[in-house]
Amino acid sequence: MYPPANQKLTIALDAMGGDCAPNCVIEGADEARRLYPDINFIIYGDEAKCLPLLKRHPGLERVSKFVHTHDAVPDDEKPSIAIRQRQNSSMSLAIKAVKTNEAAGAVSAGNTGALMAMAKIQLRTLPGIDRPAIGGVLPTKRGNCVMLDLGANVSCDENNLFEFAVMGDAFARALLKIKSPSIGILNIGSEEMKGNEVVRNAAALLRESELNLNFHGHVEGNDICEGIVDVIVTDGFSGNIALKTVEGTAKMLAMFLKEAFKSNILSYIGAMLAKPALAKLFKKVDPSMHNGAMFLGLNGIIVKSHGSTNALGFANAIKVAIELAKNGINQKIIEEMVKSGHIPAAE
Amino acid sequence: MYPPANQKLTIALDAMGGDCAPNCVIEGADEARRLYPDINFIIYGDEAKCLPLLKRHPGLERVSKFVHTHDAVPDDEKPSIAIRQRQNSSMSLAIKAVKTNEAAGAVSAGNTGALMAMAKIQLRTLPGIDRPAIGGVLPTKRGNCVMLDLGANVSCDENNLFEFAVMGDAFARALLKIKSPSIGILNIGSEEMKGNEVVRNAAALLRESELNLNFHGHVEGNDICEGIVDVIVTDGFSGNIALKTVEGTAKMLAMFLKEAFKSNILSYIGAMLAKPALAKLFKKVDPSMHNGAMFLGLNGIIVKSHGSTNALGFANAIKVAIELAKNGINQKIIEEMVKSGHIPAAE
Repeated sequence: MYPPANQKLTIALDAMGGDCAPNCVIEGADEARRLYPDINFIIYGDEAKCLPLLKRHPGLERVSKFVHTHDAVPDDEKPSIAIRQRQNSSMSLAIKAVKTNEAAGAVSAGNTGALMAMAKIQLRTLPGIDRPAIGGVLPTKRGNCVMLDLGANVSCDENNLFEFAVMGDAFARALLKIKSPSIGILNIGSEEMKGNEVVRNAAALLRESELNLNFHGHVEGNDICEGIVDVIVTDGFSGNIALKTVEGTAKMLAMFLKEAFKSNILSYIGAMLAKPALAKLFKKVDPSMHNGAMFLGLNGIIVKSHGSTNALGFANAIKVAIELAKNGINQKIIEEMVKSGHIPAAE
Repeated sequence: MYPPANQKLTIALDAMGGDCAPNCVIEGADEARRLYPDINFIIYGDEAKCLPLLKRHPGLERVSKFVHTHDAVPDDEKPSIAIRQRQNSSMSLAIKAVKTNEAAGAVSAGNTGALMAMAKIQLRTLPGIDRPAIGGVLPTKRGNCVMLDLGANVSCDENNLFEFAVMGDAFARALLKIKSPSIGILNIGSEEMKGNEVVRNAAALLRESELNLNFHGHVEGNDICEGIVDVIVTDGFSGNIALKTVEGTAKMLAMFLKEAFKSNILSYIGAMLAKPALAKLFKKVDPSMHNGAMFLGLNGIIVKSHGSTNALGFANAIKVAIELAKNGINQKIIEEMVKSGHIPAAE
C-alpha cells in the first residue's frame, strides 16, 4: 500500500475541481514540485483545458503523467448522483489511482460530498474505523493544531469520538511532527461533568484507554487558538462551525485592520512602515497556508483542498498529501487501533 | 411588572460576583450612572467591603440603596447547592428584587449556573417558553448581532430553537434597535437539506410560521462575523463553542499584531503612528464592549456579566439590563408567543 523507500512518491490530482480549476491546480502542482523535487504526479482532466497550461510549466510536465477525461463532477451535484454517474470523472479517476496503488495519495478541490462518497466506496474504511472524519490544520498562538471532524459526521457517538482521537493523534504526528500530541475534546467547559453524555463518555473512554495517548481532557472554543492542545476532537457539526468561525473572525479583523490603516494619513504611513511585519502576521493566518484537509480513516490518502483556494493553497494541500504519505499516516492509525483492541493484530 | 413611564427604573446589582468584585461592580455602576442619570440602583453585598467603595463614588451613592448581606455564592459552587443554601446571598437577593418588582432587572458577574438555577426557580419562565436561553451580542463586519443560546441548553429540539428565534428577534429589537431583525439558524451549510434533523425542522417551523419574522435560513460559522444576519439561533453547545471561538481567534490575532509591531523598529514607529486608529479597532472587538448576556425567557430581566470583566464591562452589562427594561423585551416576547399560537391571548 505504501511505496517502498527507494521509490518515488506519486500524487494523483483532480485538475477539474475548485473555483479556478484547472489553473490553480496546475500552478499549485508546479509550486509543490519545486518544494518536493522527488515527487511524480498523475493529473486527471480535460486535455483541451489542461495541456496548454501544462506546456507553460515544463518542470511540472517532466514529472507528470497526464490522463485525459472530459467528465468532471459539478460543484452542486448530489453525492448520490455523482457516485453513480461520474465514474470517469477526474475526481473518481484520481481516487482510483490511490486504490490501485498507482498513487500514494490524491488531492481534489472539488465537491466535498461527492469526494467523500466516492472515496468511501472505492477505498473503504480502515480496519476498526467506523466512520471517516475530515481533519485539518488551524493556526494557534503556539503554532498549529489539528481538528477533526470538520463536517463529515453531523452527529457522533463516543466511539466515533474515540476513533477521531486516535486518528487525530496519528495525523498530528505525521503532519505536524509532534511526538506525543496532546488531545482535547471540544466542550462547553473544562470540568469533567460539563457538556453532553457523548463528550463525557468519550473523555472517559480516552482516560481509561490503554493506548499511550496524551489526553488532556475537555477544551473550550477559546482554547483552540490558544493552542492548549495539539488535537481538537469533536463531532462534524461543532467542528465545522468552530473552523468557519475562526475563518470568519480572522476575516472580520483583517477588514477592521485595513479600515484602521486607511482612516487617516498617519495610520497609512504607519501601515507602510509596518508592512513587512504585517505581511508575516497575515501569512500566519492565511487560509491558503492551512489548506488541505484529509479524509481520515479511509484506506488511502485523500486530501480535500478548499474550493476557493489559490495556487499557493493548492500547493499546500499537495504538501499535506505528500507529508502524510511519507510519514505513513494510515500505518500509524492501524497500529493504534490494533493496540486499542479495536482490531485483531493479524488483520 | 414594568415600571410606568413616569417612574425611575431601578436595577439590582449583585456586588459580590465576579473576579474583581465588589470593585468592578461599584465602579461599573458609577460609570453606568453617568450614562443613565435617570436610573436608581439597589446594591446587595457585604457592607465592610462595599461601603468604603461606595463612599468614594458619591454620585452613585446618591442614587443607590445599599442592602447588606454577608453571604455570597462561590464561583465553583454547584447550582443545586446554591439554590438550597444561598437564599440570602447577594445574588439571590438581587433576583428577588426583580421578582418583587423592586427592580426592573438584575445584573450579576457571579456563578452562571447558580444564577440561572436561582433565577429559574424565583422568576419562572415566560408563558409559552419551555426553556430559557442565554443571549449575547457579538461584533460583526456590519455592526453587531445577537446569538442564542450561549450555553444554557446543551441539547435542544426544534421547538426550543423556534422559541429561541422568537426571543432573539425581540432581543435584537430591544437591544440593537433593529426594526425587523434577520434571523439565521447556525448550521454546517446554507442549503436547506444540510445539517441535522433538529436544525432542518426548526427552519421549517420558522418558514411556515405565521409570525412576521424575517427568517433568512441557515447560516454558517463564518457568517456570524460577516454580519449576514442580526440573530443567530443555535443550541447551547454550538453557541457556546462559536462564541468562545470568536473570542479566542480575536485574542490570538491581537497577540500576533502586537508581536508584529514589536518585531522591528520601523514596525514600532508604524504602530505609534497608527495608534489612535488601532485603538478604535480594538474597541470594536473589545469583549467588555459586548459584555452582558441576558437570560432570555424568564419572567424578569437577569443579565449575566462575564466573571473576568472590568468596570467598563460591568457598566456595559448594566446598560444591557437598562435598555432591555426600557424597551420591554419581555412584553415583546409575550406578544410574539401569543401571535404564534403558543399561548392563548388571555394569558
